[in-house]
Amino acid sequence: MSGTAGQVIRCKAAVAWEAGKPLVIEEVEVAPPQKNEVRLKILFTSLCHTDVYFWEAKGQNPLFPRIFGHEAGGIVESVGEGVTDLQPGDHVLPVFTGECKECPHCHSEESNMCDLLRINTDRGVMINDGQSRFSIKGKPIYHFVGTSTFSEYTVTHVGCVAKINPLAPLDKVCVLSCGISTGFGATVNVAKPEEGPTVAIFGLGAVGLAAAEGARVSGASRIIGVDLNPSRFNEAKKFGVTEFVNPKDYDKPVQQVIAEMTNGGVDRSVECTGSVQAMISAFECVHDGWGVAVLVGVPHKDAVFKTHPMNLLNERTLKGTFFGNYKPRSDLPSVVEKYMSKELEVEKFITHTVPFSEINKAFEYMLRGEGLRCIIRMEE
Amino acid sequence: MSGTAGQVIRCKAAVAWEAGKPLVIEEVEVAPPQKNEVRLKILFTSLCHTDVYFWEAKGQNPLFPRIFGHEAGGIVESVGEGVTDLQPGDHVLPVFTGECKECPHCHSEESNMCDLLRINTDRGVMINDGQSRFSIKGKPIYHFVGTSTFSEYTVTHVGCVAKINPLAPLDKVCVLSCGISTGFGATVNVAKPEEGPTVAIFGLGAVGLAAAEGARVSGASRIIGVDLNPSRFNEAKKFGVTEFVNPKDYDKPVQQVIAEMTNGGVDRSVECTGSVQAMISAFECVHDGWGVAVLVGVPHKDAVFKTHPMNLLNERTLKGTFFGNYKPRSDLPSVVEKYMSKELEVEKFITHTVPFSEINKAFEYMLRGEGLRCIIRMEE
Ligand SMILES: NC(=O)c1ccc[n+]([C@@H]2O[C@H](COP(=O)([O-])OP(=O)(O)OC[C@H]3O[C@@H](n4cnc5c(N)ncnc54)[C@H](O)[C@@H]3O)[C@@H](O)[C@H]2O)c1
Ligand SMILES: NC(=O)c1ccc[n+]([C@@H]2O[C@H](COP(=O)([O-])OP(=O)(O)OC[C@H]3O[C@@H](n4cnc5c(N)ncnc54)[C@H](O)[C@@H]3O)[C@@H](O)[C@H]2O)c1
Ligand SMILES: [Zn+2]
Ligand SMILES: [Zn+2]
Ligand SMILES: [Zn+2]
Ligand SMILES: [Zn+2]
Repeated sequence: MSGTAGQVIRCKAAVAWEAGKPLVIEEVEVAPPQKNEVRLKILFTSLCHTDVYFWEAKGQNPLFPRIFGHEAGGIVESVGEGVTDLQPGDHVLPVFTGECKECPHCHSEESNMCDLLRINTDRGVMINDGQSRFSIKGKPIYHFVGTSTFSEYTVTHVGCVAKINPLAPLDKVCVLSCGISTGFGATVNVAKPEEGPTVAIFGLGAVGLAAAEGARVSGASRIIGVDLNPSRFNEAKKFGVTEFVNPKDYDKPVQQVIAEMTNGGVDRSVECTGSVQAMISAFECVHDGWGVAVLVGVPHKDAVFKTHPMNLLNERTLKGTFFGNYKPRSDLPSVVEKYMSKELEVEKFITHTVPFSEINKAFEYMLRGEGLRCIIRMEE
Repeated sequence: MSGTAGQVIRCKAAVAWEAGKPLVIEEVEVAPPQKNEVRLKILFTSLCHTDVYFWEAKGQNPLFPRIFGHEAGGIVESVGEGVTDLQPGDHVLPVFTGECKECPHCHSEESNMCDLLRINTDRGVMINDGQSRFSIKGKPIYHFVGTSTFSEYTVTHVGCVAKINPLAPLDKVCVLSCGISTGFGATVNVAKPEEGPTVAIFGLGAVGLAAAEGARVSGASRIIGVDLNPSRFNEAKKFGVTEFVNPKDYDKPVQQVIAEMTNGGVDRSVECTGSVQAMISAFECVHDGWGVAVLVGVPHKDAVFKTHPMNLLNERTLKGTFFGNYKPRSDLPSVVEKYMSKELEVEKFITHTVPFSEINKAFEYMLRGEGLRCIIRMEE
């Protein structure tokens, strides 16, 4: 048992007090883990676009003050009652969607949408008692997707934590806790391209490029990258993307441009933008008869996906996925092993590193569309 | 060679002169088949809702005068140049979507949307020369989906004709040439329910009840039938439908009613109505994590399928299909064999029979939602 077990820990956290305003590093109190909870010492965290959406709260419900962050690596500090799978010192990746191992989803081979622990972006408290474990001078600060990793210490449900190989470097594999696994899994687990396919990737951020990596590993013959930001194209070459399309360069819908490039459409597409227009294009650009489109981007709360039903009748398939259909506890450790065995490279996704005190820079890079993942080092 | 080969045949056909007006039995001239075409003597035909939509031309492009009909059984009268697969006397089912056996779709295991011969509801002519084979006193009458079976003789592309077991009774198996294969295949080939699933069927006409039959054969534990017409429910009991929901009986969306009945949604749904509202409900009523919805109904030309993208992200799958994904020439003969071996019953779909002279009665039955399939006997 660590010396802090059972005690409130005082530490630094980056608090979002208001939508769209820079985070403020504050001293927070982190309560001990309750039943089926664990307290983690976060060592490295990175910024995913999902954090930015809920921080901006433009197309999402606002909930403030809140501690964001869900892509991270850390070490178990202490465990609550009933936790037997994890113990202090274990190396872990927290995940925004959990696995209780008991519900129909956890028992299903197809789903990772655990009834108990699936992503819930509107809940800012722990499910055990409906309370937050974070406070500042007694005033509660909300959690985000059960992870809140922009804090030196955080409390999560045990089902939202994957125990990984302690030899894996946390400053690298932390990016597997959301974006890279999400994109890679969306291609290999959901779009499931067969040998030699053409694949279109919408959005060439870290998630989209991980999806491209999945296509490359699956033996795609052509990988067409689509982005509104032309500076993405240079980076994307390192990820096996073979062609680039900027919808702004055409006065016809990008789905039509892609259909013309590919004799009727791509075999698979993966949307990683969050823009509903890109979702529609990603669907409509797949080939009739056999094309499969997979949606990954987190949409605005009022977004409406619209298409003519004939596009479906023409034997296209449309799906969506969270976390690349990986079950966090069961599957994520083996994704980390793919990194260890050099099957999956993560270094190339890491374009920036900042100390925790400069966390707002990570937001600036993402808002400017600069780079892919920015690692935030909790220890200066 | 039959005595009529190479000659224009004069025979009776039911001509639709105007949208929504009763068909008129006329004497028409049927030209000989050209390259890769065959001329068929139709013995039995039946009415599918797709004929009715294009005849009403409310939500579809009007094209008149036209000879409708695409669900039928007949005998090859003569064959055009280059036809080697068929010869006069062969028993056949014409199909609204063809199989050239040479294009990427015909080579794909997944698709039956032949590049050359896929359904085209706006084309009223043969592809060989862009002309019609039907005329009245020299004035052309348009074809419908390459079949035009409301005529004693018709000309089709050889790729739109399945040669079947000559022992199969054409007055029964004619319904396999569209509706029954479409519904049955939509479930077994596309929705692919695994053991013990719950299945919702939207629309309990012949297509929907064939989809229900597919669910029953697949071992469904519950088959929930949805229709606006309560008189459908009695008939549906013969097809293994275990529960009935009439959206009109509720003041909440039917997808919500079904989710409540099934602890979150059905495993599979098949939409067989043509109503875009039913398509949306059929999609939204499948369980998140693993649910698959299949669209079969032919939509209005201006219909828009709308849903919140989160319904997709929550790991639902949405697909559509023509002709139950069967390839007409390769697969339909074995569907007929399923009937011959009593694996698939078709008699219960046949609720009415009329002589050709009373073909308009078949339209009345369908418009009133009375019965399932009405067989039209060409020979009085
Ligand atoms: N489903 C999941 O489990 C899951 C997990 C992680 C992230 N996400 C979502 O995936 C998306 C990508 O995340 P990221 O961290 O890689 O973000 P990012 O900002 O690094 O990358 C997004 C890219 O999409 C591009 N883009 C935006 N709109 C576009 C459009 N209309 N057409 C083409 N390109 C467009 C941007 O220019 C940018 O390059 C976000 O929506 C995020 O919320 C989903
Ligand atoms: N995709 C294909 O290959 C293919 C092939 C054949 C038929 N179809 C289409 O399948 C559909 C069914 O054909 P059918 O011949 O069985 O028609 P039908 O008229 O016999 O049956 C349709 C049933 O749907 C019901 N219905 C209509 N709107 C509804 C709604 N909003 N909610 C619930 N029920 C509703 C009607 O009351 C009717 O009982 C039609 O749209 C037809 O065009 C498609
Ligand atoms: Zn993320
Ligand atoms: Zn669970
Ligand atoms: Zn039909
Ligand atoms: Zn073909």
